Amino acid sequence: MSVNEGEDQPRLLTSVDVMFFDTDCAAVVHNLAYLRFIETNRTLLAGQLGMGLAGMAESGVYPVVVRSDVEYRRPASLGDTLEVEGWLESFDRTCFWCGFEVRRKRDGLLMVTARQMLAVVRMPAARPMRLPEDWADRWPSLARDRVR
Amino acid sequence: MSVNEGEDQPRLLTSVDVMFFDTDCAAVVHNLAYLRFIETNRTLLAGQLGMGLAGMAESGVYPVVVRSDVEYRRPASLGDTLEVEGWLESFDRTCFWCGFEVRRKRDGLLMVTARQMLAVVRMPAARPMRLPEDWADRWPSLARDRVR
Amino acid sequence: MSVNEGEDQPRLLTSVDVMFFDTDCAAVVHNLAYLRFIETNRTLLAGQLGMGLAGMAESGVYPVVVRSDVEYRRPASLGDTLEVEGWLESFDRTCFWCGFEVRRKRDGLLMVTARQMLAVVRMPAARPMRLPEDWADRWPSLARDRVR
Amino acid sequence: MSVNEGEDQPRLLTSVDVMFFDTDCAAVVHNLAYLRFIETNRTLLAGQLGMGLAGMAESGVYPVVVRSDVEYRRPASLGDTLEVEGWLESFDRTCFWCGFEVRRKRDGLLMVTARQMLAVVRMPAARPMRLPEDWADRWPSLARDRVR
Repeated sequence: MSVNEGEDQPRLLTSVDVMFFDTDCAAVVHNLAYLRFIETNRTLLAGQLGMGLAGMAESGVYPVVVRSDVEYRRPASLGDTLEVEGWLESFDRTCFWCGFEVRRKRDGLLMVTARQMLAVVRMPAARPMRLPEDWADRWPSLARDRVR
Repeated sequence: MSVNEGEDQPRLLTSVDVMFFDTDCAAVVHNLAYLRFIETNRTLLAGQLGMGLAGMAESGVYPVVVRSDVEYRRPASLGDTLEVEGWLESFDRTCFWCGFEVRRKRDGLLMVTARQMLAVVRMPAARPMRLPEDWADRWPSLARDRVR
Repeated sequence: MSVNEGEDQPRLLTSVDVMFFDTDCAAVVHNLAYLRFIETNRTLLAGQLGMGLAGMAESGVYPVVVRSDVEYRRPASLGDTLEVEGWLESFDRTCFWCGFEVRRKRDGLLMVTARQMLAVVRMPAARPMRLPEDWADRWPSLARDRVR
Repeated sequence: MSVNEGEDQPRLLTSVDVMFFDTDCAAVVHNLAYLRFIETNRTLLAGQLGMGLAGMAESGVYPVVVRSDVEYRRPASLGDTLEVEGWLESFDRTCFWCGFEVRRKRDGLLMVTARQMLAVVRMPAARPMRLPEDWADRWPSLARDRVR
Protein backbone atom coordinates (compact mmCIF):
# COMPACT_ATOMS: atom_id res chain seq x y z
CA MET A 1 0.00 0.00 0.00
CA SER A 2 1.24 3.50 -0.73
CA VAL A 3 0.09 7.11 -0.91
CA ASN A 4 0.95 8.76 -4.20
CA GLU A 5 2.75 11.70 -2.60
CA GLY A 6 3.53 13.23 -5.96
CA GLU A 7 -0.11 13.92 -6.71
CA ASP A 8 -2.13 16.56 -4.98
CA GLN A 9 -4.70 14.07 -3.74
CA PRO A 10 -3.75 11.62 -0.99
CA ARG A 11 -4.61 8.17 -2.23
CA LEU A 12 -4.12 4.64 -0.92
CA LEU A 13 -4.48 1.16 -2.38
CA THR A 14 -5.18 -1.80 -0.10
CA SER A 15 -5.88 -5.41 -0.97
CA VAL A 16 -8.01 -8.11 0.64
CA ASP A 17 -8.72 -11.78 -0.07
CA VAL A 18 -12.42 -12.63 0.30
CA MET A 19 -12.91 -15.03 3.22
CA PHE A 20 -15.89 -17.20 4.20
CA PHE A 21 -16.95 -14.69 6.85
CA ASP A 22 -17.21 -12.04 4.09
CA THR A 23 -19.76 -14.01 2.08
CA ASP A 24 -23.42 -14.93 2.59
CA CYS A 25 -25.69 -17.72 1.44
CA ALA A 26 -26.41 -15.99 -1.86
CA ALA A 27 -22.81 -17.10 -2.59
CA VAL A 28 -21.50 -13.53 -2.87
CA VAL A 29 -19.76 -11.02 -0.62
CA HIS A 30 -22.24 -9.59 1.88
CA ASN A 31 -22.85 -5.84 1.62
CA LEU A 32 -21.50 -5.25 5.14
CA ALA A 33 -18.15 -6.85 4.34
CA TYR A 34 -17.27 -4.17 1.78
CA LEU A 35 -17.64 -1.59 4.56
CA ARG A 36 -15.01 -3.43 6.58
CA PHE A 37 -12.72 -3.43 3.53
CA ILE A 38 -13.34 0.30 3.10
CA GLU A 39 -12.80 1.02 6.81
CA THR A 40 -9.42 -0.70 6.70
CA ASN A 41 -8.42 1.40 3.70
CA ARG A 42 -9.77 4.61 5.24
CA THR A 43 -8.07 4.00 8.57
CA LEU A 44 -4.68 3.41 6.96
CA LEU A 45 -5.22 6.45 4.73
CA ALA A 46 -6.06 8.56 7.80
CA GLY A 47 -2.88 7.26 9.43
CA GLN A 48 -0.86 8.65 6.55
CA LEU A 49 -2.68 11.98 6.87
CA GLY A 50 -1.53 12.34 10.48
CA MET A 51 -4.30 10.49 12.30
CA GLY A 52 -2.68 7.23 13.33
CA LEU A 53 -4.47 4.55 15.31
CA ALA A 54 -2.05 4.54 18.23
CA GLY A 55 -2.41 8.30 18.63
CA MET A 56 -6.20 8.02 18.47
CA ALA A 57 -6.36 5.38 21.18
CA GLU A 58 -4.30 7.67 23.44
CA SER A 59 -5.98 10.99 22.69
CA GLY A 60 -9.55 9.78 22.35
CA VAL A 61 -9.85 11.87 19.19
CA TYR A 62 -11.24 9.84 16.30
CA PRO A 63 -12.62 10.41 12.82
CA VAL A 64 -16.21 9.12 12.87
CA VAL A 65 -18.40 8.35 9.88
CA VAL A 66 -21.22 10.90 9.52
CA ARG A 67 -22.52 9.88 6.11
CA SER A 68 -21.88 6.75 4.08
CA ASP A 69 -23.21 6.37 0.53
CA VAL A 70 -22.43 3.06 -1.11
CA GLU A 71 -23.29 1.73 -4.54
CA TYR A 72 -23.08 -2.02 -5.10
CA ARG A 73 -22.45 -2.67 -8.81
CA ARG A 74 -21.31 -6.27 -9.13
CA PRO A 75 -21.02 -9.14 -6.66
CA ALA A 76 -17.62 -10.49 -5.60
CA SER A 77 -17.15 -14.13 -4.55
CA LEU A 78 -15.11 -16.37 -2.30
CA GLY A 79 -11.54 -16.52 -3.55
CA ASP A 80 -11.58 -13.10 -5.23
CA THR A 81 -8.82 -10.70 -4.36
CA LEU A 82 -10.25 -7.20 -4.12
CA GLU A 83 -8.36 -3.93 -4.34
CA VAL A 84 -9.72 -0.93 -2.50
CA GLU A 85 -8.61 2.51 -3.63
CA GLY A 86 -9.40 5.34 -1.25
CA TRP A 87 -8.65 9.04 -1.57
CA LEU A 88 -9.16 12.31 0.22
CA GLU A 89 -11.72 14.22 -1.79
CA SER A 90 -12.13 17.45 0.18
CA PHE A 91 -12.24 18.84 3.72
CA ASP A 92 -13.35 21.80 5.79
CA ARG A 93 -12.52 22.73 9.39
CA THR A 94 -13.89 19.65 11.15
CA CYS A 95 -14.97 17.25 8.41
CA PHE A 96 -13.46 15.44 5.46
CA TRP A 97 -14.84 13.51 2.52
CA CYS A 98 -13.31 10.35 1.08
CA GLY A 99 -14.06 8.43 -2.10
CA PHE A 100 -13.58 4.68 -2.59
CA GLU A 101 -13.55 2.18 -5.42
CA VAL A 102 -13.42 -1.58 -4.89
CA ARG A 103 -12.19 -3.56 -7.91
CA ARG A 104 -11.64 -7.25 -8.57
CA LYS A 105 -7.90 -7.67 -8.97
CA ARG A 106 -7.82 -10.24 -11.73
CA ASP A 107 -9.67 -8.07 -14.27
CA GLY A 108 -10.03 -4.64 -12.71
CA LEU A 109 -13.83 -4.90 -12.73
CA LEU A 110 -15.50 -2.23 -10.58
CA MET A 111 -17.57 -3.90 -7.85
CA VAL A 112 -18.43 -1.14 -5.36
CA THR A 113 -18.10 2.63 -5.12
CA ALA A 114 -18.56 4.66 -1.96
CA ARG A 115 -18.31 8.17 -0.61
CA GLN A 116 -18.08 8.91 3.10
CA MET A 117 -18.09 12.07 5.18
CA LEU A 118 -16.16 11.95 8.43
CA ALA A 119 -15.97 14.32 11.37
CA VAL A 120 -13.08 14.45 13.79
CA VAL A 121 -14.48 14.28 17.31
CA ARG A 122 -13.26 13.79 20.85
CA MET A 123 -14.98 10.76 22.38
CA PRO A 124 -17.02 9.88 24.31
CA ALA A 125 -18.48 13.40 24.36
CA ALA A 126 -18.52 13.44 20.52
CA ARG A 127 -17.22 17.04 20.58
CA PRO A 128 -16.12 18.20 17.10
CA MET A 129 -12.39 18.97 16.82
CA ARG A 130 -10.44 20.87 14.17
CA LEU A 131 -8.63 18.90 11.53
CA PRO A 132 -4.82 19.12 11.58
CA GLU A 133 -3.72 22.67 10.74
CA ASP A 134 -1.38 21.63 7.98
CA TRP A 135 -4.03 20.10 5.72
CA ALA A 136 -4.94 23.46 4.15
CA ASP A 137 -1.28 24.01 3.28
CA ARG A 138 -0.63 20.50 2.08
CA TRP A 139 -3.73 20.12 -0.09
CA PRO A 140 -5.09 23.62 -0.81
CA SER A 141 -7.05 22.43 -3.83
CA LEU A 142 -9.07 20.08 -1.61
CA ALA A 143 -10.05 22.70 0.98
CA ARG A 144 -13.70 23.77 0.97
CA ASP A 145 -14.51 27.48 1.27
CA ARG A 146 -14.88 27.49 5.02
CA VAL A 147 -11.23 26.54 5.44
CA ARG A 148 -9.44 28.78 2.96
CA MET B 1 -43.12 -6.16 15.48
CA SER B 2 -46.02 -5.43 13.19
CA VAL B 3 -46.89 -3.97 9.83
CA ASN B 4 -49.52 -1.28 9.99
CA GLU B 5 -51.79 -2.91 7.42
CA GLY B 6 -54.32 -0.14 7.74
CA GLU B 7 -51.99 2.43 6.25
CA ASP B 8 -50.99 2.53 2.65
CA GLN B 9 -47.32 2.23 3.42
CA PRO B 10 -45.98 -1.08 4.77
CA ARG B 11 -44.05 -0.31 7.92
CA LEU B 12 -42.31 -2.39 10.58
CA LEU B 13 -40.84 -1.67 13.99
CA THR B 14 -38.08 -3.89 15.40
CA SER B 15 -36.08 -3.54 18.57
CA VAL B 16 -32.52 -4.45 19.51
CA ASP B 17 -30.43 -4.26 22.67
CA VAL B 18 -26.91 -2.98 22.01
CA MET B 19 -24.37 -5.71 22.75
CA PHE B 20 -20.59 -5.57 23.21
CA PHE B 21 -20.04 -6.81 19.67
CA ASP B 22 -22.02 -3.80 18.39
CA THR B 23 -19.68 -1.26 20.00
CA ASP B 24 -16.13 -0.16 19.33
CA CYS B 25 -13.32 1.36 21.39
CA ALA B 26 -14.71 4.87 20.98
CA ALA B 27 -17.35 3.54 23.43
CA VAL B 28 -20.20 3.90 20.94
CA VAL B 29 -22.06 1.64 18.52
CA HIS B 30 -19.88 0.99 15.46
CA ASN B 31 -21.26 2.29 12.17
CA LEU B 32 -21.43 -1.25 10.72
CA ALA B 33 -23.65 -2.50 13.53
CA TYR B 34 -26.53 -0.20 12.56
CA LEU B 35 -26.51 -1.86 9.15
CA ARG B 36 -27.09 -5.23 10.81
CA PHE B 37 -29.97 -3.72 12.80
CA ILE B 38 -31.40 -2.29 9.56
CA GLU B 39 -30.93 -5.56 7.67
CA THR B 40 -32.87 -7.43 10.33
CA ASN B 41 -35.71 -4.94 10.05
CA ARG B 42 -35.63 -4.95 6.25
CA THR B 43 -35.59 -8.73 6.04
CA LEU B 44 -38.60 -9.10 8.32
CA LEU B 45 -40.38 -6.30 6.42
CA ALA B 46 -39.66 -8.10 3.13
CA GLY B 47 -41.05 -11.27 4.66
CA GLN B 48 -44.34 -9.50 5.30
CA LEU B 49 -44.33 -8.22 1.72
CA GLY B 50 -44.21 -11.77 0.39
CA MET B 51 -40.46 -12.39 0.31
CA GLY B 52 -39.87 -14.72 3.24
CA LEU B 53 -36.45 -16.08 4.13
CA ALA B 54 -37.43 -19.73 3.81
CA GLY B 55 -38.81 -19.15 0.32
CA MET B 56 -35.66 -17.26 -0.66
CA ALA B 57 -33.36 -20.03 0.47
CA GLU B 58 -35.35 -22.48 -1.68
CA SER B 59 -35.84 -20.37 -4.78
CA GLY B 60 -32.47 -18.62 -4.82
CA VAL B 61 -34.29 -15.35 -5.45
CA TYR B 62 -33.17 -12.62 -3.07
CA PRO B 63 -33.50 -8.88 -2.64
CA VAL B 64 -29.97 -7.46 -2.79
CA VAL B 65 -28.84 -4.03 -1.70
CA VAL B 66 -27.90 -1.85 -4.69
CA ARG B 67 -27.51 1.49 -2.92
CA SER B 68 -27.24 2.28 0.77
CA ASP B 69 -27.18 5.85 2.03
CA VAL B 70 -26.78 6.21 5.78
CA GLU B 71 -26.61 9.29 7.97
CA TYR B 72 -25.20 8.91 11.47
CA ARG B 73 -26.63 11.63 13.70
CA ARG B 74 -25.95 10.64 17.29
CA PRO B 75 -23.96 7.80 18.86
CA ALA B 76 -25.71 4.99 20.74
CA SER B 77 -24.00 3.13 23.60
CA LEU B 78 -23.83 -0.23 25.32
CA GLY B 79 -27.08 -0.90 27.14
CA ASP B 80 -29.23 1.25 24.88
CA THR B 81 -32.33 -0.33 23.43
CA LEU B 82 -32.77 0.86 19.86
CA GLU B 83 -35.93 0.82 17.80
CA VAL B 84 -35.65 0.51 14.04
CA GLU B 85 -38.56 1.65 11.93
CA GLY B 86 -38.48 0.58 8.30
CA TRP B 87 -40.97 1.24 5.54
CA LEU B 88 -41.51 0.62 1.86
CA GLU B 89 -41.01 3.96 0.17
CA SER B 90 -41.58 3.13 -3.50
CA PHE B 91 -40.96 0.44 -6.12
CA ASP B 92 -40.76 -0.20 -9.85
CA ARG B 93 -40.65 -3.49 -11.78
CA THR B 94 -37.48 -4.96 -10.30
CA CYS B 95 -36.38 -2.58 -7.54
CA PHE B 96 -37.75 -1.18 -4.33
CA TRP B 97 -36.71 1.61 -1.99
CA CYS B 98 -36.91 1.48 1.79
CA GLY B 99 -36.46 4.14 4.43
CA PHE B 100 -35.23 3.58 7.99
CA GLU B 101 -35.00 5.47 11.24
CA VAL B 102 -33.16 4.21 14.30
CA ARG B 103 -34.22 5.78 17.58
CA ARG B 104 -33.14 5.33 21.19
CA LYS B 105 -36.08 3.79 22.96
CA ARG B 106 -35.85 5.59 26.28
CA ASP B 107 -36.26 9.09 24.80
CA GLY B 108 -37.09 8.63 21.11
CA LEU B 109 -33.89 10.41 20.06
CA LEU B 110 -33.09 9.90 16.38
CA MET B 111 -29.69 8.23 16.02
CA VAL B 112 -29.46 7.08 12.39
CA THR B 113 -31.45 7.49 9.19
CA ALA B 114 -30.97 5.42 6.05
CA ARG B 115 -32.37 4.86 2.62
CA GLN B 116 -31.68 1.73 0.61
CA MET B 117 -32.46 0.61 -2.92
CA LEU B 118 -32.88 -3.12 -3.44
CA ALA B 119 -33.15 -5.24 -6.56
CA VAL B 120 -34.73 -8.66 -6.63
CA VAL B 121 -32.32 -11.05 -8.35
CA ARG B 122 -31.86 -14.75 -8.92
CA MET B 123 -28.52 -15.84 -7.49
CA PRO B 124 -25.78 -16.73 -8.21
CA ALA B 125 -26.30 -15.35 -11.71
CA ALA B 126 -27.60 -12.04 -10.26
CA ARG B 127 -30.33 -11.97 -12.94
CA PRO B 128 -32.97 -9.28 -12.17
CA MET B 129 -36.44 -10.66 -11.46
CA ARG B 130 -39.82 -8.95 -11.38
CA LEU B 131 -41.26 -7.95 -8.02
CA PRO B 132 -44.44 -9.77 -6.94
CA GLU B 133 -47.31 -8.87 -9.29
CA ASP B 134 -49.63 -7.82 -6.49
CA TRP B 135 -47.53 -4.94 -5.22
CA ALA B 136 -48.93 -2.47 -7.78
CA ASP B 137 -52.46 -3.37 -6.66
CA ARG B 138 -51.72 -3.36 -2.97
CA TRP B 139 -49.76 -0.10 -2.84
CA PRO B 140 -50.57 1.87 -6.00
CA SER B 141 -49.43 5.14 -4.46
CA LEU B 142 -45.92 3.73 -4.01
CA ALA B 143 -45.49 2.51 -7.61
CA ARG B 144 -43.06 4.48 -9.73
CA ASP B 145 -44.07 5.39 -13.30
CA ARG B 146 -42.50 2.34 -14.92
CA VAL B 147 -44.89 0.06 -13.05
CA ARG B 148 -48.22 1.77 -13.39
CA MET C 1 -36.93 -14.79 27.72
CA SER C 2 -36.96 -15.72 31.35
CA VAL C 3 -34.82 -17.09 34.13
CA ASN C 4 -36.30 -20.09 35.86
CA GLU C 5 -36.04 -18.60 39.32
CA GLY C 6 -37.52 -21.66 40.89
CA GLU C 7 -34.59 -23.84 39.97
CA ASP C 8 -31.22 -23.59 41.56
CA GLN C 9 -29.48 -22.91 38.30
CA PRO C 10 -30.01 -19.54 36.60
CA ARG C 11 -31.07 -20.25 33.04
CA LEU C 12 -32.20 -18.12 30.10
CA LEU C 13 -33.76 -18.85 26.73
CA THR C 14 -33.30 -16.41 23.85
CA SER C 15 -34.38 -16.68 20.25
CA VAL C 16 -32.91 -15.43 16.99
CA ASP C 17 -33.94 -15.56 13.33
CA VAL C 18 -31.03 -16.39 11.04
CA MET C 19 -30.27 -13.42 8.78
CA PHE C 20 -28.18 -13.18 5.61
CA PHE C 21 -25.29 -11.67 7.55
CA ASP C 22 -25.24 -14.82 9.73
CA THR C 23 -24.67 -17.16 6.77
CA ASP C 24 -21.75 -17.83 4.45
CA CYS C 25 -21.35 -19.10 0.92
CA ALA C 26 -21.52 -22.73 2.05
CA ALA C 27 -25.23 -21.84 2.52
CA VAL C 28 -25.14 -22.38 6.28
CA VAL C 29 -24.73 -20.23 9.38
CA HIS C 30 -21.10 -19.18 9.75
CA ASN C 31 -19.35 -20.43 12.89
CA LEU C 32 -18.77 -16.88 14.13
CA ALA C 33 -22.47 -16.04 14.06
CA TYR C 34 -23.31 -18.60 16.75
CA LEU C 35 -20.91 -16.77 19.04
CA ARG C 36 -22.91 -13.60 18.58
CA PHE C 37 -26.09 -15.52 19.39
CA ILE C 38 -24.41 -16.93 22.49
CA GLU C 39 -23.04 -13.52 23.55
CA THR C 40 -26.52 -12.03 23.39
CA ASN C 41 -27.85 -14.82 25.58
CA ARG C 42 -24.91 -14.60 27.99
CA THR C 43 -25.16 -10.83 28.30
CA LEU C 44 -28.86 -10.93 29.12
CA LEU C 45 -28.25 -13.80 31.55
CA ALA C 46 -25.51 -11.77 33.24
CA GLY C 47 -27.92 -8.87 33.48
CA GLN C 48 -30.31 -11.03 35.44
CA LEU C 49 -27.45 -12.11 37.71
CA GLY C 50 -26.77 -8.50 38.68
CA MET C 51 -24.36 -7.45 35.91
CA GLY C 52 -26.47 -5.23 33.70
CA LEU C 53 -25.12 -3.51 30.59
CA ALA C 54 -25.93 0.00 31.73
CA GLY C 55 -24.10 -0.56 35.00
CA MET C 56 -21.12 -2.03 33.17
CA ALA C 57 -20.81 0.94 30.85
CA GLU C 58 -20.74 3.24 33.88
CA SER C 59 -18.45 1.24 36.16
CA GLY C 60 -16.06 -0.09 33.53
CA VAL C 61 -16.37 -3.53 35.15
CA TYR C 62 -17.14 -6.22 32.59
CA PRO C 63 -17.26 -9.99 32.37
CA VAL C 64 -14.71 -10.98 29.71
CA VAL C 65 -14.42 -14.32 27.96
CA VAL C 66 -11.31 -16.22 29.09
CA ARG C 67 -12.03 -19.59 27.47
CA SER C 68 -14.56 -20.51 24.80
CA ASP C 69 -15.08 -24.13 23.76
CA VAL C 70 -17.61 -24.63 21.00
CA GLU C 71 -18.82 -27.78 19.28
CA TYR C 72 -20.59 -27.42 15.95
CA ARG C 73 -22.90 -30.40 15.46
CA ARG C 74 -25.29 -29.53 12.64
CA PRO C 75 -25.53 -26.56 10.28
CA ALA C 76 -28.39 -24.07 10.53
CA SER C 77 -29.67 -22.20 7.47
CA LEU C 78 -31.25 -18.93 6.41
CA GLY C 79 -34.80 -18.75 7.70
CA ASP C 80 -34.22 -20.99 10.70
CA THR C 81 -35.28 -19.71 14.08
CA LEU C 82 -32.72 -20.74 16.67
CA GLU C 83 -33.19 -20.96 20.40
CA VAL C 84 -30.21 -20.41 22.65
CA GLU C 85 -30.35 -21.76 26.16
CA GLY C 86 -27.67 -20.50 28.52
CA TRP C 87 -27.09 -21.30 32.15
CA LEU C 88 -24.72 -20.56 34.99
CA GLU C 89 -22.74 -23.73 35.55
CA SER C 90 -20.41 -22.79 38.42
CA PHE C 91 -18.34 -19.91 39.80
CA ASP C 92 -15.45 -19.07 42.08
CA ARG C 93 -14.30 -15.70 43.45
CA THR C 94 -13.56 -13.95 40.16
CA CYS C 95 -14.67 -16.32 37.40
CA PHE C 96 -17.82 -18.04 36.27
CA TRP C 97 -18.62 -20.79 33.81
CA CYS C 98 -21.63 -20.88 31.52
CA GLY C 99 -23.03 -23.61 29.32
CA PHE C 100 -25.00 -23.10 26.11
CA GLU C 101 -27.12 -25.12 23.73
CA VAL C 102 -28.38 -23.81 20.39
CA ARG C 103 -31.37 -25.68 18.98
CA ARG C 104 -33.47 -25.30 15.86
CA LYS C 105 -36.87 -24.19 17.02
CA ARG C 106 -39.03 -26.12 14.59
CA ASP C 107 -37.79 -29.56 15.66
CA GLY C 108 -35.58 -29.00 18.70
CA LEU C 109 -32.52 -30.36 16.88
CA LEU C 110 -29.27 -29.57 18.69
CA MET C 111 -27.00 -27.51 16.43
CA VAL C 112 -24.24 -26.14 18.68
CA THR C 113 -23.05 -26.60 22.25
CA ALA C 114 -20.60 -24.33 24.04
CA ARG C 115 -18.96 -23.77 27.37
CA GLN C 116 -17.34 -20.47 28.29
CA MET C 117 -15.31 -19.27 31.25
CA LEU C 118 -15.61 -15.59 32.10
CA ALA C 119 -13.65 -13.36 34.45
CA VAL C 120 -14.99 -10.15 35.89
CA VAL C 121 -12.42 -7.41 35.31
CA ARG C 122 -12.11 -3.66 35.53
CA MET C 123 -11.17 -2.27 32.13
CA PRO C 124 -9.00 -1.03 30.57
CA ALA C 125 -6.50 -2.28 33.14
CA ALA C 126 -8.05 -5.78 33.01
CA ARG C 127 -7.77 -6.03 36.81
CA PRO C 128 -9.71 -9.04 38.18
CA MET C 129 -12.65 -8.11 40.40
CA ARG C 130 -14.69 -10.21 42.84
CA LEU C 131 -18.03 -11.53 41.70
CA PRO C 132 -21.10 -10.14 43.50
CA GLU C 133 -21.07 -11.25 47.16
CA ASP C 134 -24.57 -12.68 47.04
CA TRP C 135 -23.86 -15.37 44.45
CA ALA C 136 -22.54 -17.84 47.05
CA ASP C 137 -25.74 -17.40 49.05
CA ARG C 138 -28.08 -17.52 46.08
CA TRP C 139 -26.55 -20.54 44.35
CA PRO C 140 -24.45 -22.43 46.91
CA SER C 141 -24.52 -25.63 44.87
CA LEU C 142 -22.75 -23.84 41.99
CA ALA C 143 -19.89 -22.39 44.07
CA ARG C 144 -16.49 -23.97 43.52
CA ASP C 145 -14.33 -24.81 46.53
CA ARG C 146 -12.46 -21.53 46.59
CA VAL C 147 -15.66 -19.62 47.27
CA ARG C 148 -17.36 -21.70 49.89
CA MET D 1 3.34 -15.20 4.74
CA SER D 2 5.00 -18.54 4.06
CA VAL D 3 4.81 -22.21 4.89
CA ASN D 4 8.06 -23.58 6.25
CA GLU D 5 8.28 -26.42 3.74
CA GLY D 6 11.52 -27.67 5.22
CA GLU D 7 9.87 -28.66 8.48
CA ASP D 8 7.53 -31.55 8.83
CA GLN D 9 4.68 -29.42 10.07
CA PRO D 10 2.94 -27.01 7.67
CA ARG D 11 2.93 -23.61 9.31
CA LEU D 12 1.85 -20.13 8.26
CA LEU D 13 2.32 -16.65 9.68
CA THR D 14 -0.18 -13.91 8.87
CA SER D 15 -0.40 -10.36 10.15
CA VAL D 16 -3.29 -8.01 10.86
CA ASP D 17 -3.64 -4.42 12.07
CA VAL D 18 -6.38 -4.03 14.67
CA MET D 19 -9.19 -1.85 13.28
CA PHE D 20 -12.07 -0.08 15.03
CA PHE D 21 -14.48 -2.83 13.97
CA ASP D 22 -12.26 -5.35 15.82
CA THR D 23 -12.61 -3.57 19.16
CA ASP D 24 -15.45 -3.11 21.64
CA CYS D 25 -16.36 -0.54 24.26
CA ALA D 26 -14.11 -2.18 26.86
CA ALA D 27 -11.38 -0.63 24.65
CA VAL D 28 -9.92 -4.00 23.66
CA VAL D 29 -10.21 -6.40 20.75
CA HIS D 30 -13.53 -8.25 20.93
CA ASN D 31 -13.29 -12.01 21.37
CA LEU D 32 -15.03 -12.63 18.03
CA ALA D 33 -12.46 -10.61 16.09
CA TYR D 34 -9.65 -13.05 16.94
CA LEU D 35 -11.70 -15.78 15.29
CA ARG D 36 -11.75 -13.78 12.06
CA PHE D 37 -7.97 -13.34 12.32
CA ILE D 38 -7.63 -17.09 12.88
CA GLU D 39 -9.99 -17.94 10.01
CA THR D 40 -7.94 -15.85 7.61
CA ASN D 41 -4.79 -17.66 8.69
CA ARG D 42 -6.45 -21.07 8.56
CA THR D 43 -7.95 -20.45 5.12
CA LEU D 44 -4.63 -19.40 3.64
CA LEU D 45 -2.94 -22.37 5.34
CA ALA D 46 -5.56 -24.70 3.87
CA GLY D 47 -4.90 -23.15 0.47
CA GLN D 48 -1.26 -24.13 0.74
CA LEU D 49 -2.30 -27.66 1.73
CA GLY D 50 -4.25 -28.08 -1.50
CA MET D 51 -7.64 -26.65 -0.50
CA GLY D 52 -7.75 -23.29 -2.23
CA LEU D 53 -10.71 -20.94 -2.00
CA ALA D 54 -11.35 -20.81 -5.74
CA GLY D 55 -11.47 -24.60 -5.91
CA MET D 56 -13.80 -24.76 -2.93
CA ALA D 57 -16.26 -22.30 -4.44
CA GLU D 58 -16.39 -24.46 -7.59
CA SER D 59 -16.52 -27.90 -6.00
CA GLY D 60 -18.69 -27.07 -3.00
CA VAL D 61 -16.26 -29.01 -0.83
CA TYR D 62 -15.21 -27.01 2.20
CA PRO D 63 -13.39 -27.54 5.48
CA VAL D 64 -15.87 -26.68 8.24
CA VAL D 65 -15.09 -26.00 11.88
CA VAL D 66 -16.34 -28.83 14.12
CA ARG D 67 -14.70 -27.81 17.37
CA SER D 68 -13.11 -24.51 18.36
CA ASP D 69 -11.33 -24.11 21.68
CA VAL D 70 -9.96 -20.64 22.35
CA GLU D 71 -8.07 -19.24 25.30
CA TYR D 72 -7.91 -15.49 25.72
CA ARG D 73 -4.79 -14.56 27.67
CA ARG D 74 -4.23 -10.84 27.21
CA PRO D 75 -6.25 -8.09 25.54
CA ALA D 76 -5.02 -6.42 22.34
CA SER D 77 -5.92 -2.82 21.50
CA LEU D 78 -6.57 -0.49 18.60
CA GLY D 79 -3.34 0.14 16.71
CA ASP D 80 -1.72 -3.16 17.65
CA THR D 81 -0.32 -5.28 14.87
CA LEU D 82 -1.03 -8.93 15.60
CA GLU D 83 0.72 -11.93 14.16
CA VAL D 84 -1.20 -15.17 13.83
CA GLU D 85 0.76 -18.39 13.55
CA GLY D 86 -1.22 -21.42 12.45
CA TRP D 87 -0.07 -24.97 11.89
CA LEU D 88 -1.38 -28.38 10.95
CA GLU D 89 -1.29 -30.45 14.11
CA SER D 90 -2.67 -33.80 12.96
CA PHE D 91 -5.26 -35.40 10.67
CA ASP D 92 -7.22 -38.56 10.02
CA ARG D 93 -9.31 -39.59 6.98
CA THR D 94 -11.88 -36.77 7.04
CA CYS D 95 -10.76 -34.36 9.77
CA PHE D 96 -7.76 -32.26 10.62
CA TRP D 97 -6.63 -30.33 13.68
CA CYS D 98 -4.93 -26.94 13.63
CA GLY D 99 -3.24 -24.96 16.36
CA PHE D 100 -2.96 -21.17 16.52
CA GLU D 101 -1.09 -18.53 18.48
CA VAL D 102 -1.82 -14.82 18.23
CA ARG D 103 1.01 -12.55 19.37
CA ARG D 104 1.47 -8.80 19.57
CA LYS D 105 4.10 -7.95 17.01
CA ARG D 106 5.96 -5.23 18.89
CA ASP D 107 6.94 -7.45 21.81
CA GLY D 108 5.92 -10.99 20.89
CA LEU D 109 3.46 -11.16 23.81
CA LEU D 110 1.06 -14.12 23.53
CA MET D 111 -2.53 -12.84 23.41
CA VAL D 112 -4.64 -15.80 22.30
CA THR D 113 -4.19 -19.52 21.70
CA ALA D 114 -6.63 -21.75 19.88
CA ARG D 115 -7.12 -25.26 18.63
CA GLN D 116 -9.68 -26.16 16.01
CA MET D 117 -10.91 -29.40 14.51
CA LEU D 118 -12.14 -29.25 10.93
CA ALA D 119 -13.99 -31.73 8.76
CA VAL D 120 -13.95 -31.66 4.99
CA VAL D 121 -17.53 -31.83 3.76
CA ARG D 122 -19.50 -31.41 0.57
CA MET D 123 -22.09 -28.67 1.04
CA PRO D 124 -24.98 -28.12 1.37
CA ALA D 125 -25.53 -31.78 2.28
CA ALA D 126 -22.64 -31.63 4.76
CA ARG D 127 -21.46 -35.07 3.57
CA PRO D 128 -17.98 -35.91 4.93
CA MET D 129 -15.29 -36.24 2.27
CA ARG D 130 -11.81 -37.75 2.41
CA LEU D 131 -8.86 -35.44 2.86
CA PRO D 132 -6.41 -35.23 -0.08
CA GLU D 133 -4.69 -38.61 -0.56
CA ASP D 134 -1.20 -37.15 -0.49
CA TRP D 135 -1.36 -35.83 3.07
CA ALA D 136 -0.39 -39.17 4.61
CA ASP D 137 2.69 -39.26 2.38
CA ARG D 138 3.64 -35.65 2.86
CA TRP D 139 3.24 -35.52 6.64
CA PRO D 140 3.30 -39.08 7.96
CA SER D 141 4.20 -37.96 11.46
CA LEU D 142 0.94 -35.98 11.67
CA ALA D 143 -1.34 -38.82 10.58
CA ARG D 144 -3.55 -40.30 13.29
CA ASP D 145 -3.86 -44.08 13.53
CA ARG D 146 -6.93 -44.36 11.35
CA VAL D 147 -5.02 -43.03 8.33
CA ARG D 148 -1.73 -44.92 8.49
